[in-house]
Amino acid sequence: MKAEVISIGTEITSGQNLDTNGQWLSQRLGEMGIVVGFHTTVADNLEDNIACFRNAIQRSNLVLSTGGLGPTQDDLTREVLAAVAGVELVEHAESLAQIQAMFARWGHAMPERNQVQALFPQGAEPLPNSRGTAPGIWMTFPNGTIVVSMPGVPSEMFEMFVQEVQPRLTRMGHGDRVQVIRKIHAFGAGESTVDNLLSDITQRGAVPEVGITASGAVISLRILAQSTTTQGAWSQITSVEATIRERLGPLVFGTDAEDLHDVVGQLLIEKGLRIATAESITAGLVAHRLSQVPGISACLMGGVVAYTNAAKESELGVPAALLAEHSAVSEPVARAMAEGVRHKFHTDIGIATTGYAGPDGGADGTPVGTVYTAIATEDGILVQRHSWQGTRSEIQDRTARMALNLVRKKLQNIA
Amino acid sequence: MKAEVISIGTEITSGQNLDTNGQWLSQRLGEMGIVVGFHTTVADNLEDNIACFRNAIQRSNLVLSTGGLGPTQDDLTREVLAAVAGVELVEHAESLAQIQAMFARWGHAMPERNQVQALFPQGAEPLPNSRGTAPGIWMTFPNGTIVVSMPGVPSEMFEMFVQEVQPRLTRMGHGDRVQVIRKIHAFGAGESTVDNLLSDITQRGAVPEVGITASGAVISLRILAQSTTTQGAWSQITSVEATIRERLGPLVFGTDAEDLHDVVGQLLIEKGLRIATAESITAGLVAHRLSQVPGISACLMGGVVAYTNAAKESELGVPAALLAEHSAVSEPVARAMAEGVRHKFHTDIGIATTGYAGPDGGADGTPVGTVYTAIATEDGILVQRHSWQGTRSEIQDRTARMALNLVRKKLQNIA
Repeated sequence: MKAEVISIGTEITSGQNLDTNGQWLSQRLGEMGIVVGFHTTVADNLEDNIACFRNAIQRSNLVLSTGGLGPTQDDLTREVLAAVAGVELVEHAESLAQIQAMFARWGHAMPERNQVQALFPQGAEPLPNSRGTAPGIWMTFPNGTIVVSMPGVPSEMFEMFVQEVQPRLTRMGHGDRVQVIRKIHAFGAGESTVDNLLSDITQRGAVPEVGITASGAVISLRILAQSTTTQGAWSQITSVEATIRERLGPLVFGTDAEDLHDVVGQLLIEKGLRIATAESITAGLVAHRLSQVPGISACLMGGVVAYTNAAKESELGVPAALLAEHSAVSEPVARAMAEGVRHKFHTDIGIATTGYAGPDGGADGTPVGTVYTAIATEDGILVQRHSWQGTRSEIQDRTARMALNLVRKKLQNIA
Repeated sequence: MKAEVISIGTEITSGQNLDTNGQWLSQRLGEMGIVVGFHTTVADNLEDNIACFRNAIQRSNLVLSTGGLGPTQDDLTREVLAAVAGVELVEHAESLAQIQAMFARWGHAMPERNQVQALFPQGAEPLPNSRGTAPGIWMTFPNGTIVVSMPGVPSEMFEMFVQEVQPRLTRMGHGDRVQVIRKIHAFGAGESTVDNLLSDITQRGAVPEVGITASGAVISLRILAQSTTTQGAWSQITSVEATIRERLGPLVFGTDAEDLHDVVGQLLIEKGLRIATAESITAGLVAHRLSQVPGISACLMGGVVAYTNAAKESELGVPAALLAEHSAVSEPVARAMAEGVRHKFHTDIGIATTGYAGPDGGADGTPVGTVYTAIATEDGILVQRHSWQGTRSEIQDRTARMALNLVRKKLQNIA
């Protein structure tokens, strides 16, 4: 089965918006084992749309489109499909009634212009829209190609695809191959180090396919397995995942949608531990990320944004002499901040960040990107020094992750 | 001039990545007044690529492509263009020398496989790549259509477009119309309120074109002006911008890339004012956003993440009785937090946030999305109550913006 996706809208061809609908549909079809060969975006122009659809119907056997089903003069999809099929547009009484009922629920009469949304190419099947006024269109062309046209509004399209389109495709026997994607995330080493440890796994042609990407110092392995059954796909994944975990060891912190703060927050909640944050360079980012984890209020006792030397002294008890002798961006001060906030909030763990995010480095010549992270527990205090390149934002982000990673390794008893 | 963009890569058709190159090129071409009619994404497949390019060359007079110029077996663009043109691939000695020199600069001999990157369809012109090994291709087809093929790596493609492609297009007289886009951002009212105030400006067919979008409670007006000169485009913008500002008044907080924290940070720096943050629900987000503004260390004296009642008492001096009587999410407590942090850090301004982000609301039945923001200055304390729908993250984000907006309105003397 050769599939393709058409996203209709001048807001995309002009570069105003990204084609996220096309990406979403490709992912859903991929999971069903249906390969998408082309994405096309076309402007709200009748001739160009007709040419696009004509071409697509000829070269693919499944064409999914989004957009062009609204009630305005720019919404052309109904007209386009009718023109390509060489048929008339006819009104579907049930769809019209549904649209009128939707407006009635909102306390209005249906505006006259919405009547066009009940027009369908003769022979086409309406697909109900539970979230908006535009019904979708399911249509089989003379050469056997199936065209499915859905609204452009993402939430309406998602619902229609899941409720109406996916079941139809499955019933027809399409999507007989299952595709499962599993992501494994690592932090604490560079991309080339990880790639070297896994080169036989990530090479072209390996089954399952494993891709490696790096973003914000997080290295992600993306395992893509295909099989005729879900179990078959999962057994491929389990096998290669075991190898990855064995080779990367404690570098691996999570899977799929998990970020470092999710994992650390969960560990804190599970172990019933209390934590407090002392942040200079990151200015609240570490605490804020932890606050994303539902239930964290049992663990996050508080935090200090100690952005000045005075705040480090008054709020965290960092001795003025220490700041004078070593400066705020130093190991002794990071140590004192972590211990200070742990005592202040009476917690099991205190973490601290201090550093230069830029544009300026230290008055003493310490370069931008010099950062210290520290963790204090009843066992003692651990401080790490880092030296990174990047924008202000990138350095803050990486510092926050490094601080959270210190907590993870402590809680997971990793050296 | 009819233009279109082709983005080559299975990582896009599969839905793994978004086609950001296509969007970027459409924006740059739009600024030159060149309209893009189609975006196509095609997988790394020879036949499909040939069909795509053939179709594009026929219907458009300018075709820009990205991708497929690497040294691997999946990189097909050179072969595709040669096949469509019906010519041979020939080696370009100067390009080969440049690739070899690039590897030499990195201290390596050129791997044999990179030699293919010096092959060009006969008659094509190489475009130098200052950031990578793949030269681009500029090629005029028999029907007059110009095809420009660039690397898929965004940073390499951006550079090549700006350095090599844009000047050539301009010299040829293309891009003779100038397009300028200006964005105006408002906060503090809903999209329909703003739309009602500007309905004559945002209607279809207005010149210049004004679109309205909403994201994270920020309402943005996007003005798109076209003219034969930059001055002509700007005079259209200035006129409609004045009308927008007049009608929206203090709702307008910034333009183009500015976010609320950028504007507030700048105001604090300009006025030499000091600020401290007391955050419960937002847990450091307000302080972190302010820390994004270069130079803010002169103003952001510190902050407290007071995530528990105990922390509100010990760090901000909020009376236990107040918490017991009204609960943490209340006007009296928000007031006490803002004043408390102002005194603690000896600042001109103290801001506070407290509320329920979810999943749970208050034990007393106060619903999720109930939020208080407060600002304390020498003139007194102002508290606002809000009630929003949304995810945990959306409620935190909106609360942070609302708190920053309180500061903005205070500093701009807006009621």
